[in-house]
Amino acid sequence: MIVPKILKPSKQDILDAQDRIKPYIHHTPVLSSQIINEITGRKVFFKCENFQKAGAFKSRGACNAVLSLPESELLKGVATHSSGNHAQALARAAKIKGITAHIVMPENSSKVKIDGVIYYNGKITFCRPTLEDRELTLEEVIRRTGATEIHPYNNLRIIAGQATACLEAITDIESLDLVIAPVGGGGLLSGTALAVHYFGKSIKVIAAEPVNADDAYQSFKTATFVPSVAPDTIADGLRTSLGSITYPIICNHVEDIVTVTEEGIIAAMRLVWERMKIIIEPSSAVPLAALIENKISERYKNICLIISGGNVDLNDLPWIKF
Amino acid sequence: MIVPKILKPSKQDILDAQDRIKPYIHHTPVLSSQIINEITGRKVFFKCENFQKAGAFKSRGACNAVLSLPESELLKGVATHSSGNHAQALARAAKIKGITAHIVMPENSSKVKIDGVIYYNGKITFCRPTLEDRELTLEEVIRRTGATEIHPYNNLRIIAGQATACLEAITDIESLDLVIAPVGGGGLLSGTALAVHYFGKSIKVIAAEPVNADDAYQSFKTATFVPSVAPDTIADGLRTSLGSITYPIICNHVEDIVTVTEEGIIAAMRLVWERMKIIIEPSSAVPLAALIENKISERYKNICLIISGGNVDLNDLPWIKF
Repeated sequence: MIVPKILKPSKQDILDAQDRIKPYIHHTPVLSSQIINEITGRKVFFKCENFQKAGAFKSRGACNAVLSLPESELLKGVATHSSGNHAQALARAAKIKGITAHIVMPENSSKVKIDGVIYYNGKITFCRPTLEDRELTLEEVIRRTGATEIHPYNNLRIIAGQATACLEAITDIESLDLVIAPVGGGGLLSGTALAVHYFGKSIKVIAAEPVNADDAYQSFKTATFVPSVAPDTIADGLRTSLGSITYPIICNHVEDIVTVTEEGIIAAMRLVWERMKIIIEPSSAVPLAALIENKISERYKNICLIISGGNVDLNDLPWIKF
Repeated sequence: MIVPKILKPSKQDILDAQDRIKPYIHHTPVLSSQIINEITGRKVFFKCENFQKAGAFKSRGACNAVLSLPESELLKGVATHSSGNHAQALARAAKIKGITAHIVMPENSSKVKIDGVIYYNGKITFCRPTLEDRELTLEEVIRRTGATEIHPYNNLRIIAGQATACLEAITDIESLDLVIAPVGGGGLLSGTALAVHYFGKSIKVIAAEPVNADDAYQSFKTATFVPSVAPDTIADGLRTSLGSITYPIICNHVEDIVTVTEEGIIAAMRLVWERMKIIIEPSSAVPLAALIENKISERYKNICLIISGGNVDLNDLPWIKF
């Protein structure tokens, strides 16, 4: 039987990404909390990408993708559609190289996200809030400008960039036995799984996903790609479907995917805010929710959670009812 | 003329406090933010006591005071009246020594603060929410139990403990020219001023205070003690009057006191939450508000702000109107 070779960044690709982006990103800290260790009965290490440039791990992949482009492509700029952290991260990466980032955003995007893109000089084109219109508008922008599309996750250089967060974590933390990452489109998760595969010895990777947006869980368990349809979760970074590149990497290198409730996500988010005094976005609370909801085997004792980002609309907190 | 010698912790008292409390407190990190440097036009260093044990610098003084007690006094426990961070900090310090902390709290204290004291096994006696009833109730508790009163700020060992936050900061940050601390009862401020006096060479200390609770400002400028009467500020840690010990230290060792508006405090607090992704309480935002409201001379370029704590009621945020 011939096992098909899957497309994935190599060990060297991840090391190259780490060197390439080093001057432009933070080596983020690893924090822990005695109270959260008591609550979970494990040693829990938080890899704090909420302190990353532009507030999320997305700066790693975006920098790696932009800094890898040949001069000829750089001239015409880069483009993406995003209503979230990738938009700001790509605008920032483009600004570093002095090129234009064309960002297609739904017209109902929150002011804080629009302001974030404008802060980094991103050139916004608004579209109607449907996936179809986002894709059509992006196509039109690319046709008009010649910009290179930088997909938020289904891109080898994005994945190699996101892998560097976990690479830092497993280098900085001794004797880990598990890393838990949230999963949306799978860029962070596939990068995390590859970092552990190449550099992590006996460490395992488990993904955590909202049960209300459990397409990755379904795809993983049934071994058949299931798209995300009408996801209804507060974890706005995790509503997307896996990609053609991220899905096979996840199937090959992730130990398991578990799901958590909306209540669990909100409670875990609030616990981190109250006890650790750091601001994390709902997507970042999903791995801790998995621990608190007893979805993670007790054989794992030293666990790193990837805190994906800290971009939250402070006027709209999930525990405050209006 | 005989200059009266003021009562204050010595250099050695502060070094002893640092050694004594070391196993029980965090050496907190110093953070910075490129965006806040751009906004203020200075290099700003945040000494993050919001990450301190029990969420505030108060753990330093409380530990130093409790750990300094002779065995005979320890047996009968400690007591204080506090609706704030000192209550939790003292309960925690008492728990470390296995003794009882009697905490007199106003019956309208927020649930989160009551829960904090209970978490550390503090023994709460509720009273009516007037200063008179707080003091009478505390007297009664002390008469009944024989506990030693640990005043939240007008106490030499508390001041020596609070001084260790600034001592860490000026050791960790190179070439500072100014430290700004908030001022309420003056425990943190007088400790900060003494740490700089003994260990800071050419560094100056300026205090920042809400204009709506400007008793320290008035006392400093008129050289006559002015009590805090009906303070109306969101910065709940800064509503108290200076003490008989803290006031003279401040007069002798603080360069200046400046005042800030409520709007400035809220805006500075929100800026730190949004840009630095850390949770600080309103009192902690007062020094940054002073910078943003142009109350600090431009000759100061490298400035450390003491972030006093991060204990906030997440159900009641000042920028959310109900």
